[in-house]
Amino acid sequence: MPTVLVPIGDGRSLLFIAGQVSVQDGTRLTGRCPDEVSVEEAQERARICALNLLAQMDAAAGLDNVERVAQLTGFVLSADSFGEQPKVLNGASDLLVDVLGEAGRHTRAALGTNALPFSVTVEIAAIVVVRTS
Amino acid sequence: MPTVLVPIGDGRSLLFIAGQVSVQDGTRLTGRCPDEVSVEEAQERARICALNLLAQMDAAAGLDNVERVAQLTGFVLSADSFGEQPKVLNGASDLLVDVLGEAGRHTRAALGTNALPFSVTVEIAAIVVVRTS
Amino acid sequence: MPTVLVPIGDGRSLLFIAGQVSVQDGTRLTGRCPDEVSVEEAQERARICALNLLAQMDAAAGLDNVERVAQLTGFVLSADSFGEQPKVLNGASDLLVDVLGEAGRHTRAALGTNALPFSVTVEIAAIVVVRTS
Repeated sequence: MPTVLVPIGDGRSLLFIAGQVSVQDGTRLTGRCPDEVSVEEAQERARICALNLLAQMDAAAGLDNVERVAQLTGFVLSADSFGEQPKVLNGASDLLVDVLGEAGRHTRAALGTNALPFSVTVEIAAIVVVRTS
Repeated sequence: MPTVLVPIGDGRSLLFIAGQVSVQDGTRLTGRCPDEVSVEEAQERARICALNLLAQMDAAAGLDNVERVAQLTGFVLSADSFGEQPKVLNGASDLLVDVLGEAGRHTRAALGTNALPFSVTVEIAAIVVVRTS
Repeated sequence: MPTVLVPIGDGRSLLFIAGQVSVQDGTRLTGRCPDEVSVEEAQERARICALNLLAQMDAAAGLDNVERVAQLTGFVLSADSFGEQPKVLNGASDLLVDVLGEAGRHTRAALGTNALPFSVTVEIAAIVVVRTS
């Protein structure tokens, strides 16, 4: 499932969102950073993951009901020596704050890995607090 | 600890489950996909991780009290070019739905990595909602 | 943000903590285990991540208000054949129990990866239950 909603009382829920990958208009954006995909391109792909996260939040609860993005866990397909995952994932983090304001500020784990589904460049999962009543 | 139970009100709790690895009858099932272990074998090992997750759910709360598997985070020991982590992890996802029905449907992050404990093929952590009163 | 606090009723909250890396006195402790950094050194760096997690718990809620460390997700920068992530991360786990006692016992996912921010040796994120009233 793309999302699961878990009530935590007081009219609020935790919204778990499945890992969203760098897919735009049905096309997977693939390749490893930085040798196959530049840091700037990877940043744009992280931004696309965040757009997909926002689409899931909107479908599950409505963007107006997002109280706080609690946790972002982001993985960048990385060559062994690459260490600029935070810069890449800022493409996602900055968009969440631009769209959601204070509610978009979040904790983050920025991680690299040697392998992601279909070799997409970025995958990001999230836990969000939403108002549900 | 294998699990931690966190009450969230209304007689329900979040059950955090430690990363369960592909271990069967005390034997670690190791090796990288797809060069050392085939996709089909890796799928079976993901299924074993899910069996271990179910055993933890049963020990902590009873399988009858599982309300919803909220989040699965699955890692497949992967060669650099490998991208079929979703197919591998379906071995776990399908079993959860087979055993738990609707309650077993979950959000998932499917990830690859170059290194896991003792070179096990699959490791999966979970957050589950259970009824505790 | 370093932490986000999410009330779950009954005067308790989930405290989400951003990935804490092996940084001490402003210096990043970098390098891959075990070829660039020994298991023992990496253990000490995991311990430093736990110190940084404790500092975040203290700043957000006060260490006296930590009810339970629910989940630790730890990544060790690893060479391909390396599988002693649990031993490395015990450096963090043991410290949490030493400082917090029973409240410091936790579920854990021990993972390896080929790439972390700035090539730090260890990164650990956490979800903690704290008393907030």
